[in-house]
Formats: sequence, C-alpha cells, structure tokens
Amino acid sequence: MTQKNYNDISAVDALKTAQYLAVSPFIFQAVAAMKKKGLLSHFGKMSKNESVTKLELCEISGLNDYAVSVLIDLAVAADLVIRNDDNSFSPTKIIHYLANDRMTNVNFDFSSELCYEGLGYLTESLQTGTPKGLKVFTSSCSTIYPYLSSLPENARKAWFSFDHYYSDNVFSVMLPLVFKEKHFSHINDIGGNTGKFALAVAEYSKDTKVTIIDLPQQCELAKDNIRKHGLEDRIDTYPVNILEESAKLPNQGDLWWMSQFLDCFSMDQIEEILTMVYNAMSEDSMVAISEVFGDKQSNDIASLVIEANSLYFSSMANGVSRFYHSDEFVNLVEKIGFKVHRMMDHVGLAHTLLLLTK
Amino acid sequence: MTQKNYNDISAVDALKTAQYLAVSPFIFQAVAAMKKKGLLSHFGKMSKNESVTKLELCEISGLNDYAVSVLIDLAVAADLVIRNDDNSFSPTKIIHYLANDRMTNVNFDFSSELCYEGLGYLTESLQTGTPKGLKVFTSSCSTIYPYLSSLPENARKAWFSFDHYYSDNVFSVMLPLVFKEKHFSHINDIGGNTGKFALAVAEYSKDTKVTIIDLPQQCELAKDNIRKHGLEDRIDTYPVNILEESAKLPNQGDLWWMSQFLDCFSMDQIEEILTMVYNAMSEDSMVAISEVFGDKQSNDIASLVIEANSLYFSSMANGVSRFYHSDEFVNLVEKIGFKVHRMMDHVGLAHTLLLLTK
Repeated sequence: MTQKNYNDISAVDALKTAQYLAVSPFIFQAVAAMKKKGLLSHFGKMSKNESVTKLELCEISGLNDYAVSVLIDLAVAADLVIRNDDNSFSPTKIIHYLANDRMTNVNFDFSSELCYEGLGYLTESLQTGTPKGLKVFTSSCSTIYPYLSSLPENARKAWFSFDHYYSDNVFSVMLPLVFKEKHFSHINDIGGNTGKFALAVAEYSKDTKVTIIDLPQQCELAKDNIRKHGLEDRIDTYPVNILEESAKLPNQGDLWWMSQFLDCFSMDQIEEILTMVYNAMSEDSMVAISEVFGDKQSNDIASLVIEANSLYFSSMANGVSRFYHSDEFVNLVEKIGFKVHRMMDHVGLAHTLLLLTK
Repeated sequence: MTQKNYNDISAVDALKTAQYLAVSPFIFQAVAAMKKKGLLSHFGKMSKNESVTKLELCEISGLNDYAVSVLIDLAVAADLVIRNDDNSFSPTKIIHYLANDRMTNVNFDFSSELCYEGLGYLTESLQTGTPKGLKVFTSSCSTIYPYLSSLPENARKAWFSFDHYYSDNVFSVMLPLVFKEKHFSHINDIGGNTGKFALAVAEYSKDTKVTIIDLPQQCELAKDNIRKHGLEDRIDTYPVNILEESAKLPNQGDLWWMSQFLDCFSMDQIEEILTMVYNAMSEDSMVAISEVFGDKQSNDIASLVIEANSLYFSSMANGVSRFYHSDEFVNLVEKIGFKVHRMMDHVGLAHTLLLLTK
C-alpha cells in the first residue's frame, strides 16, 4: 500500500470526495435500481460510441419517464453516464466496470443484498461486540453462520457468490505451494466446512488423508459430499465445537490447515484455537494458515475493499472478528511459541499463506 | 457543468471508482460511527502535523481496540486518515471536510439519519411512484410532509437542518432582486408554510402585504408566527388544498411567489398549479419561482449533491417529485402561456430565480 501524505490531494478534490461520501447512499441505491431494472447491463453492453434515448431506457426498464430521469440525471452527475448534445446517453468507463467486472459485481451485491440495511446498526454493533445488523434477517441467531442457508434468496446468493469468488480458486494455487515444502500424508482441516478443501486435496494428492474438523452439523454436510465423491476411505470428519472448554483436537496428522477460518474469530479466540493446535501437533508437523490480510495487498483498491468488508463481520456476522492485519497474526503466533517458517503474499486473488512450525 | 468524455478517466481510476462505490455503504457507515463516537470531530480539530494513537482513540470513543481498529483501518484505506510510521494516525484533508464543512455535514446527516435505510426501497419506490422508504418511519402517511414533526429526533433534526441550510439565506438575497423589478404591494406566497418568507418580506418592505396560501394546518402554524411578530395587519392566510379539484386561488396581488414549492409535485401537478396561477393572476402581475435546478449548478459537486438528493423525494417524500432541470420548467411555463421575463442563476447557494409574466 502506498504511503499517503496530507498534501496528496487538493482542497477541491478533498471536498469533492467528502461530499461524494456524504451522498453516497443515494448514488449506491441509484446504481442498485439501475441494476435491478436492466439499465446497468444495457449500458454495460454498449460501446462508448453508442447512445440510448430516455424513451428507450423507459422501455428497457419498464419505468416511467420520471423514474428514469432521476436515475439517469444522477448517473450523469456521478460520471457513470455521459449526456450527449442530442440528450441521448452513452456509457463511461465506470459504468462498464460496474456492469461487467465480476469482482465489482460480487462486492456490490454483497453490500447491496446482504449488508446495506444491517450496516445501519454498525455503531451499535461496535459498542456491544455483537452483530446488531443481523436483526434485519433474524432475531434468533447470535451469529450469521447457522442462519446462512435460511437467508432470503438474494442475500444468500450474494453471500455465497462473495465467498466462492474469493476462495474458489485459492486451493488450486495453494496446494502446490504447500506440497512444495514436503509431501503431507494426513491433513487436519480445521473449519473444513462442507469439504471443498478436502476434496481438492484428494484430487491433488492421491495418497493424502484429510480429517475435517468442524461443528457437528457442518461435518454431516461434509460427509454427504464425501460420500457423493466416494472418498470415505480418504476423508473423515471430527465433529467438535472448538470454542467449548472441553474441546479436544485429534493427535494425528502432519499438516494443520486453516483456510479463511480464523477471520471468523476474535483475537482472544484465535489465541485459544492456535494454542490448542500448538499443544495437539507433533514436533515435525506444520500449520498452514490462509488468510486475507488488509495490510498485505498490492494495490489501494484491494486494501479498500478488504478493510471495508471487515465491517461485515462487525455488523452482520459475529461482531468480534475481521480481516486482520498480518503483523497482529505474526505477533500472536510467536507469542504462542510458533516459528514462522514461510509467509507467501499475493497468492490467488488477495491471500497470504502463512506456514508455521513448532 | 463540464461536458464529460469517455476518456476523461483512466481504466484504473474507473475501476477504483466502481469498487469504491460497491463498498461505499461500509465506508459511509464507518464515517457515521466515527461521527457518533466523537472520532470524526477529534480528527477534525487536529492539525496535519498532529497525531493520535489507537489507545487514545479508544479513550475518546469509549470503544474497544477491535472496534477502533476496524474503523481506523478502513479510514486509512479510504484516505480519511494517514497511518504514520509509529502507528499513530493523522488527519487528511478529506476528514477535515467531513468533520468541519457545514454543507458536507448537513448532507451527511440528511443521508444518514433520514434517508439511508429508506433508500433501500428506491427501486420499489420508482416502480410504484410512492415513497416506499417512508415505511421505515410510518405506515400511516402517504407523503412525509404531515409526518415531519413526528419523525424520530435525529431524523427530524437532519431534515430541518437540511431545509434551513439550503433555504434560510436565500430570502435576503432574493428580495432585493425581486423588488428591483418594481415595488410589489401584495404578494401571494403559495406554499408559504410557517411564514418564513412572509416575515422576511414584512421586514424588507414596510408597506407590502403578504397572503400565505397553504394547507389549513400550515396556515394555523403560520398564524401563530404572524401573531408572535404582531404582523396580523400585513400578513394573512388563505387555507386551501391546491390539488383539490374545487380549489380556487384569490383574485388579488401583484406578485405570485413560490419558493422551493414546486419541487414537491410531479410535472402534471406543477402544470395544474401553474395553470391555476395563470388564470387567477392579473395581466400586470408577476410570478417568481425560486428553485434548485440540477442543470444550473456552477460546479460538479453541487450537481452531484442535488441530483443525489432528488432521490429523497422519490424514496422518502412523495415518490413523484424531484429537483428538476430548468429546461423542463421553461418548456412547461411557455406551454401554459407564461413569458419568461428573467432567469437569474447562482442566487444564494444553488438557487435559480425565475420571473414570469402573462
């Protein structure tokens, strides 16, 4: 991330950014409306030399002249659309990215469908350390995780699209990096969820076993997936609530794997979990942590997106966790007694792979 | 407003703007939280060379390390705050404007306290032509106007601050411009509300009478104000619902005044109202319309703020009106039969004064 300076920006640009931010909920929802009514994708398909009239926009969207006018006039003012001399409209580069860039879309829908309303309770969430925004969807769950499959269709779709987009490709990039260290014969996959990583391992290394360590209900879902792939002999499950005082980890395996798992916990909880792993693991086994770290991004856009989405954990997910910074993690693991064996940044889209030994 | 071109912006900047927009609800609510917990004003009082530690920010806000960390990390990523080499934090110009610029604050609070949640229903509002976002506050009113005094404290304060900020100073600037035309002896103040303009006229021109034309309940409030100022002999009221078919206007007066009144109606309703005025007015009387027109702003920031806030009318106020563009108004008044006598832009903060004759 570039080091910023007070004078990097002119007074006019600073005021413009402040005002843009002050009215950003209007711009955001105007884009959301244009998206829902097909106007965004229409502009996204147009070349910069094409134009569309207001009447055509009414036909495309099914909205009346008034509704199209307020949307398009704001779109022009926010530099999403160009008004031509004949009062027709052409796309800008910004609307092209809003319409066509997958990452932008995944982020937009996550904000719009899952987080927008609940973010209104951010202050309250930070004051109480609980995800107060979750009450938009349910009053019976204290974290979003058991409620994920019950979310309204659009919100659920946005959550899973976000999750998949940021983690789906990471396993295929990380597995060769992990196995470059040595051949692992038995991986404990803590927070293994429905078995995505375990299946990827089974595919990647034909003689490696995996034990998925997760909550009992997740293990049941994972078992179904394992059965579907006929991999019962190579993947098993170990149901446990790792936060319970009586929780114990298995004494087995040569790699302990945690992928985007620890960002679901507070620093105190992470310390507990990693201490348990430290105590359970053998001297010659290794820990691999895959995380998205806000301070490890190679560009400003990625940093902004990650630091912003951290507030999803605060307001919607559990009220206590986030996308952490790498230095907090490194300090913590060293405090527990781990040695940092290797740290690889910019793996996959935005990930860091942290390899630890005892 | 400057004429935009597709190539005015680089691909990287376009993507950055698109992504910024996609996560803008997170940034917006982080600023709202910093505002509510005193962090914004603290940074606003600091000079660019001063710095503050995370521990100090915890003390100022009463928030714990986790809560301050997520806020400040996003503030750094969004260029609101600079992280110094010693991990202390200093303000940027942007946070100075967010904290100290009155217009930015008025707009921010209007977005945050009044509009944010209701804007989530923008698409639905535009589809139905009704302010669906108003259900956040009440299900018994079809427009926000009769509900204004019942709004929750913060929302009410934000509404009135917004209203006052944009209209309070305009009367003292406009009255000399209006009376430069000629001396008016009797002004009909349509949508006179609680009498602010009428009182300003009474102060400005000692022998001018004013008739406030408004809904019966507004006239009652105006009467109280008139009595308080002892101006019963110079200001009277004419209670009428101007949208009712049986409505009639008085046959009197040499100036018909409408200040930020017509933006509360649809174009069809505006045509009805102005036709009634046209038919009621004498040949030598004049019409003065004061409006904020999105296309008449001298800079991009003002255009953006005005076009954005138009969606307040769509989603929260009445579902059918907006801050219009001047050409729509001019076309309409000429269609009715009016002549545009004079049009003065950039009056007060953002207003246009339109003078019409028969």
